[in-house]
Amino acid sequence: MNAAQHPPSDPDWATLDYDRADRTGHPEVVFGEGKTPEQLVGALRLLAEAHPDRAVLATRVSASGRAAVRAELDSAVVDDDGRTVVVGPWPEPVGLVAVVSAGTADAPVCAEVTTTLRAFGAGVDVVRDVGVAGIHRVLAARDRLTAPDAVVVVAGMDGALPSVVGGLTSAPVVAVPTSVGYGASFGGVAALLTMLNSCAPGVAVVNIDNGFGAAVHAARIALRARR
Amino acid sequence: MNAAQHPPSDPDWATLDYDRADRTGHPEVVFGEGKTPEQLVGALRLLAEAHPDRAVLATRVSASGRAAVRAELDSAVVDDDGRTVVVGPWPEPVGLVAVVSAGTADAPVCAEVTTTLRAFGAGVDVVRDVGVAGIHRVLAARDRLTAPDAVVVVAGMDGALPSVVGGLTSAPVVAVPTSVGYGASFGGVAALLTMLNSCAPGVAVVNIDNGFGAAVHAARIALRARR
Amino acid sequence: MNAAQHPPSDPDWATLDYDRADRTGHPEVVFGEGKTPEQLVGALRLLAEAHPDRAVLATRVSASGRAAVRAELDSAVVDDDGRTVVVGPWPEPVGLVAVVSAGTADAPVCAEVTTTLRAFGAGVDVVRDVGVAGIHRVLAARDRLTAPDAVVVVAGMDGALPSVVGGLTSAPVVAVPTSVGYGASFGGVAALLTMLNSCAPGVAVVNIDNGFGAAVHAARIALRARR
Amino acid sequence: MNAAQHPPSDPDWATLDYDRADRTGHPEVVFGEGKTPEQLVGALRLLAEAHPDRAVLATRVSASGRAAVRAELDSAVVDDDGRTVVVGPWPEPVGLVAVVSAGTADAPVCAEVTTTLRAFGAGVDVVRDVGVAGIHRVLAARDRLTAPDAVVVVAGMDGALPSVVGGLTSAPVVAVPTSVGYGASFGGVAALLTMLNSCAPGVAVVNIDNGFGAAVHAARIALRARR
Amino acid sequence: MNAAQHPPSDPDWATLDYDRADRTGHPEVVFGEGKTPEQLVGALRLLAEAHPDRAVLATRVSASGRAAVRAELDSAVVDDDGRTVVVGPWPEPVGLVAVVSAGTADAPVCAEVTTTLRAFGAGVDVVRDVGVAGIHRVLAARDRLTAPDAVVVVAGMDGALPSVVGGLTSAPVVAVPTSVGYGASFGGVAALLTMLNSCAPGVAVVNIDNGFGAAVHAARIALRARR
Amino acid sequence: MNAAQHPPSDPDWATLDYDRADRTGHPEVVFGEGKTPEQLVGALRLLAEAHPDRAVLATRVSASGRAAVRAELDSAVVDDDGRTVVVGPWPEPVGLVAVVSAGTADAPVCAEVTTTLRAFGAGVDVVRDVGVAGIHRVLAARDRLTAPDAVVVVAGMDGALPSVVGGLTSAPVVAVPTSVGYGASFGGVAALLTMLNSCAPGVAVVNIDNGFGAAVHAARIALRARR
Amino acid sequence: MNAAQHPPSDPDWATLDYDRADRTGHPEVVFGEGKTPEQLVGALRLLAEAHPDRAVLATRVSASGRAAVRAELDSAVVDDDGRTVVVGPWPEPVGLVAVVSAGTADAPVCAEVTTTLRAFGAGVDVVRDVGVAGIHRVLAARDRLTAPDAVVVVAGMDGALPSVVGGLTSAPVVAVPTSVGYGASFGGVAALLTMLNSCAPGVAVVNIDNGFGAAVHAARIALRARR
Amino acid sequence: MNAAQHPPSDPDWATLDYDRADRTGHPEVVFGEGKTPEQLVGALRLLAEAHPDRAVLATRVSASGRAAVRAELDSAVVDDDGRTVVVGPWPEPVGLVAVVSAGTADAPVCAEVTTTLRAFGAGVDVVRDVGVAGIHRVLAARDRLTAPDAVVVVAGMDGALPSVVGGLTSAPVVAVPTSVGYGASFGGVAALLTMLNSCAPGVAVVNIDNGFGAAVHAARIALRARR
Repeated sequence: MNAAQHPPSDPDWATLDYDRADRTGHPEVVFGEGKTPEQLVGALRLLAEAHPDRAVLATRVSASGRAAVRAELDSAVVDDDGRTVVVGPWPEPVGLVAVVSAGTADAPVCAEVTTTLRAFGAGVDVVRDVGVAGIHRVLAARDRLTAPDAVVVVAGMDGALPSVVGGLTSAPVVAVPTSVGYGASFGGVAALLTMLNSCAPGVAVVNIDNGFGAAVHAARIALRARR
Repeated sequence: MNAAQHPPSDPDWATLDYDRADRTGHPEVVFGEGKTPEQLVGALRLLAEAHPDRAVLATRVSASGRAAVRAELDSAVVDDDGRTVVVGPWPEPVGLVAVVSAGTADAPVCAEVTTTLRAFGAGVDVVRDVGVAGIHRVLAARDRLTAPDAVVVVAGMDGALPSVVGGLTSAPVVAVPTSVGYGASFGGVAALLTMLNSCAPGVAVVNIDNGFGAAVHAARIALRARR
Repeated sequence: MNAAQHPPSDPDWATLDYDRADRTGHPEVVFGEGKTPEQLVGALRLLAEAHPDRAVLATRVSASGRAAVRAELDSAVVDDDGRTVVVGPWPEPVGLVAVVSAGTADAPVCAEVTTTLRAFGAGVDVVRDVGVAGIHRVLAARDRLTAPDAVVVVAGMDGALPSVVGGLTSAPVVAVPTSVGYGASFGGVAALLTMLNSCAPGVAVVNIDNGFGAAVHAARIALRARR
Repeated sequence: MNAAQHPPSDPDWATLDYDRADRTGHPEVVFGEGKTPEQLVGALRLLAEAHPDRAVLATRVSASGRAAVRAELDSAVVDDDGRTVVVGPWPEPVGLVAVVSAGTADAPVCAEVTTTLRAFGAGVDVVRDVGVAGIHRVLAARDRLTAPDAVVVVAGMDGALPSVVGGLTSAPVVAVPTSVGYGASFGGVAALLTMLNSCAPGVAVVNIDNGFGAAVHAARIALRARR
Repeated sequence: MNAAQHPPSDPDWATLDYDRADRTGHPEVVFGEGKTPEQLVGALRLLAEAHPDRAVLATRVSASGRAAVRAELDSAVVDDDGRTVVVGPWPEPVGLVAVVSAGTADAPVCAEVTTTLRAFGAGVDVVRDVGVAGIHRVLAARDRLTAPDAVVVVAGMDGALPSVVGGLTSAPVVAVPTSVGYGASFGGVAALLTMLNSCAPGVAVVNIDNGFGAAVHAARIALRARR
Repeated sequence: MNAAQHPPSDPDWATLDYDRADRTGHPEVVFGEGKTPEQLVGALRLLAEAHPDRAVLATRVSASGRAAVRAELDSAVVDDDGRTVVVGPWPEPVGLVAVVSAGTADAPVCAEVTTTLRAFGAGVDVVRDVGVAGIHRVLAARDRLTAPDAVVVVAGMDGALPSVVGGLTSAPVVAVPTSVGYGASFGGVAALLTMLNSCAPGVAVVNIDNGFGAAVHAARIALRARR
Repeated sequence: MNAAQHPPSDPDWATLDYDRADRTGHPEVVFGEGKTPEQLVGALRLLAEAHPDRAVLATRVSASGRAAVRAELDSAVVDDDGRTVVVGPWPEPVGLVAVVSAGTADAPVCAEVTTTLRAFGAGVDVVRDVGVAGIHRVLAARDRLTAPDAVVVVAGMDGALPSVVGGLTSAPVVAVPTSVGYGASFGGVAALLTMLNSCAPGVAVVNIDNGFGAAVHAARIALRARR
Repeated sequence: MNAAQHPPSDPDWATLDYDRADRTGHPEVVFGEGKTPEQLVGALRLLAEAHPDRAVLATRVSASGRAAVRAELDSAVVDDDGRTVVVGPWPEPVGLVAVVSAGTADAPVCAEVTTTLRAFGAGVDVVRDVGVAGIHRVLAARDRLTAPDAVVVVAGMDGALPSVVGGLTSAPVVAVPTSVGYGASFGGVAALLTMLNSCAPGVAVVNIDNGFGAAVHAARIALRARR
């Protein structure tokens, strides 16, 4: 509770976690799904008021939620691809995280990853569209995989990219399965299982399409590596 | 029924398919699971008698079945790794199939693939232990992936190897998921799903640990390519 | 990179794989799902420019994508049933692939199979609507199952057709499970499992509704068989 | 309770259902799994005493249970293949049920089907080993599929046989998936799903390896058809 | 082919099975899903022409398909609840099948059952809304469960009704799981599993919501019982 | 920590929860799975020392664990059926819980339920072997279902019993699915799903074979009802 | 049937269970899913007429159903959040149930829980938005978890809250998994499994989003505890 | 290949990855499953020879494999709990990783985590047996959760611990689901899903029982944080 002497009163539909920044290093993030536009805007206002010097983030914000934010929160940065909203000052980037993706259809999840990394204060290098079926594209980017503090790999369909990347770098790798695919991809389950069974050691995995979670994990690594 | 004027009488526990060679180009193969050693030896004898000029194959033969074959069928070739038995003359190899495997634990399935290929009359080139976590090993074998009539790729755990191989060759690729792995590999399901969702086009898949089926498919390709 | 001295510049949303034709015998194919109409048209233009003497294919193209192609790419061949687009000259057909389907509801997947086969340069013979519940229809088509270089079998619901076809031909069989069915068909999973467990040897399988993948596999067989 | 004026006292480990014969036409059947040899022998004795003029059946009897029965119940008929025990007089067969099986490995389930049919009073015709990969074998048995009151089809692996049989007969078809197979057969689930999705109308299905249930269903049909 | 000397020509989108009535006792039934209204009307016309003295049935007909039938086939009987269409003369009912349902939400599946039974020539007795949570309602209907040739039980949610009914009748029981429910009902999978594991012997099961299949099975029983 | 002034020192392989009795009303229970006999005996000793006036319970104790307890803890009550161990004085029973079971194979889980109820201080009435396929047996026990403070229903296979019981009582019902069954019972999953989808309101469910958990829940109800 | 001498006649689409109140302590509740607005209003009218002194409840009522109730049943209390309707006099609250929820997105299920509790006659204390990622919020509410007769815990995503609450109270805990989440939450399955495997003893679970069932269970506890 | 001028020759059953240390910072690790004792000892010898100044690790080593190592590799450190073998000099520990576990049954996985961390050069602090059902034990260890560079949390059953830990620390958290549990824990799947759906941001997950993978990920973080 370093930013506000007196926390704002809770609304009647929620109990906000104002001192999460003290405990975990970052304010509570608003999970947009299932929230009305009013609840979304209200939660962002309360958290921004409690943390005036921090970027407050909302993820998985619906189109109507994003419209409400644009209408009511002047300074908010809204990203339609990644469905994110950021309110308040962006931090100076610390450290470096590479964000590697397998195909163009993974772009929305990549956008969530990069916005979250920046909101949490990490530097970002994006390596786009380097699927394993054209392995030379991965190899051409090899230097950008070894330099950063952490690597986030985003892939759908067969989810094979993290295994290849994991064998080319000494950085910790966080894999994000995406729901890109059809049939026996089962909405991302195939890619999730591939990544959990990666034959490259050191690959940790997050939920399907959970670019946010991967970015928080990687940002914590980057911030610790450079503290 | 080109090999025997009068088919042998059926035993009381089975109805053998003596003219499968006429229909599909190869005699019926004995599926060893669930057969007693007596049934196994009996079926091999009847099929060998009906097809004296062909290699008759049995797969998934238990240890007791293999012992019975060794004791009762002098000329049989028994492979303990691949759990196969072959009776009768091996054909001259026609064409070439590359058999690529990801790890040493996949060796039993590879053995079933290579024995089946040879029994069905295809030539074989084995490329061993080239997992994607050491991608340079795959690339070093690239010429051996492009020359053959077909490529069989055997992999467990993340099952990522066929996607990489499929992007490096113009040959048709048959992928065999193996049950190697643990936890969320679910006995090979993870590798199976990876392969079904391969981002490399042209990868076809067979059942988990079904080296036999992949080899039959590939042998048919090789024999047709060289007819 | 045999077709274009200087590859076109990549757009900012993708890294195209211009030399895939050199590696695998065919240019990169555009996977339509998750692409905007602009991205689709852009990718087709860039690939057609890089491969002026080849048919460039896009699959799983949405209605809006197909409308954009019709409006902007004069010479494109658009198929609404199979949701495919082809730009550039069709190749002379080489070899022959039989495409066998179980029911009228499988027609869209069959259309994807046949368009892909033709774009990749294989000849096609379509055997329609021969479900196993009327087994005489399969038997009546028996000659058309044995002549070709490869057989693609498309079936939903119980997915039993490849097992019957596989017992009647010496050609390699590629099975495509479709999502036709309801209840415990689980969107094609039942047919997929049936095919993976086929008691006819040599049946290889692709993802649910993946007519494209089956056709690439079969076309590679046909082209090799006649080279 | 037509057979015994005074039902025997219940043991302390069970509440037997002595009047099931009045309600459903047949005495309670002993489900052997999870019963000790003592409980098995005790239950058979009590039911045989209550129904002296009927065949009392136990299924899924373990090896030790079968040994105990052989030692203590002189007149019992014990079948090691089908793991069944029958005590008391066999009824005169009424009607006819065809039992069709796909492979030799399905024999134990077939044995449970035929013993149950006979214990419940139906006539039986066994058509063995007619898998769909050799479709001519099914066609050769066609007359035996159309004559009976009901057809029970037993098949593992791809479970495709009931769809073919269902298209060749006007009798009601009961399909029994077996756990024969490996990998993606998932202990019979693949065959179960195939049968539930059969494209031949009128195919009803029982649990995996539940030859007993299929036989009870078919016997009820046969007895009704001839009453 | 007892009804038409010369079968009508097939349309270009289907291969109809005109002699199914000879093989299985009833003409081919039109599976409405995935068919355009034109294909639906066309198939009904061709089958009705080939079988002028029989009721021709279509199931799972979409709203637009039903509208097309109403507009173009004057004599058709269209049922919006069960989504069925019948063309041609209804047969005289033979035998009796009880149709028992657990809740009002199961009514559409019940309608498909009863229409199919009548089209296939069986008599019907409907016992409605007798869920096991009010067990006295089942018991009150007990006589109607024991009289018929077969009993079809339709239930969603816990799918427990067939187990209770199966213990009260000597008729063969066919259970239809419905997709009524939410959460861990998994679209009818819970009810399907309950029924497959019924502790009442003789319960056979069809696919989720497959009222048609259960009715064909039951009608075959009824017709055989009274032949 | 009302029973011991100074808690015993923790062993080096565990951190015991000595004040759970203060928080939840009962001492920590030892989960036997994965514990060596030494760890089991050690944990029981430490907890018994900390709670000398309470019954200390261990569940899921292996045969070797039970042997070690018999050898080293004189006063322990060991139940081989339910695989439980109790050390220390049994409490006076308060209130009443009915324990209803569907079949004899469910006896081990019933034993775990009844021992746990008694160790936690509740009175018990056991109603055995009243499966729904003999519904009259359930109805005959109806008074014993309505009197108690709570009803625990134990059932495997179709798991239908709680739905029937839940419609006959105003007491809260806790359902325990057991792993009794085979094939599509999936080790108790079918019964679990049945119970979760029960059409009788007020049925709450615990994990497969978790007699312990159901008993703790029911004992808490009984103790509160009579406080 | 204590409230109405002569039960109203059943409509033709349902068999209502008028004496459920006598058997289970509360009138039949209308399950709204799959009912037309007319059926919904009709069922409420009939049940209210039969039970004039009781609150009659409908759950899972669609928007059109709620509109119909508002238009036709003046005195009904309609809750759009929880999708419930109550007709007739609310009972005096007896006992106390705590309703604890993890996040704001769980509010609709909480509303169903609280309305049901009140309709069934239990007192309610709502503890909102105390997710385990901010564990201090749970601890701050500890007294409110120990006082009541029962605790209902509502949580989606990881479903971890009941394990923490279960370790802090001696009251029986009923856990409700919600479908809040995405990807590998599988519509609430992840939370359901977490709760079934809770390491806190005494946690019983209901179906995903089944606030109604949890409330009935808890209300029965509260009413018994205070009788 | 910094340690050996000339790599040793490959055995005929494997292609070792000698320069993995150059690419990823650590030598190849021997995956013990599916390897014979001879292959295990051989691989350890070859890798130790190639990397004389590094700790070479083998995981999932069977009892016979461990016996072979003890007999043939004098200096090897063998851990029977964690089933690991280490050959060669241990590195000086760099940084700090906390290893937190929920129950005593998770000890084998914890042992694999700690041995791997030490072999890869990270410092370790073990916090044992702090399950969420006794939440005070977690809180008592809070300082040890915030100090380290990374936190590895090991938990089976409900897998709830990482969500609580993730809300108490700013360090990156890696969660390891274990196969501890029964019934609907599905061999660790329940815990895996809980962790993938954690409501605490920044929790990344590895495969069930994959202590090795979590440790490699965490060690990479620790080494980077202190470089």
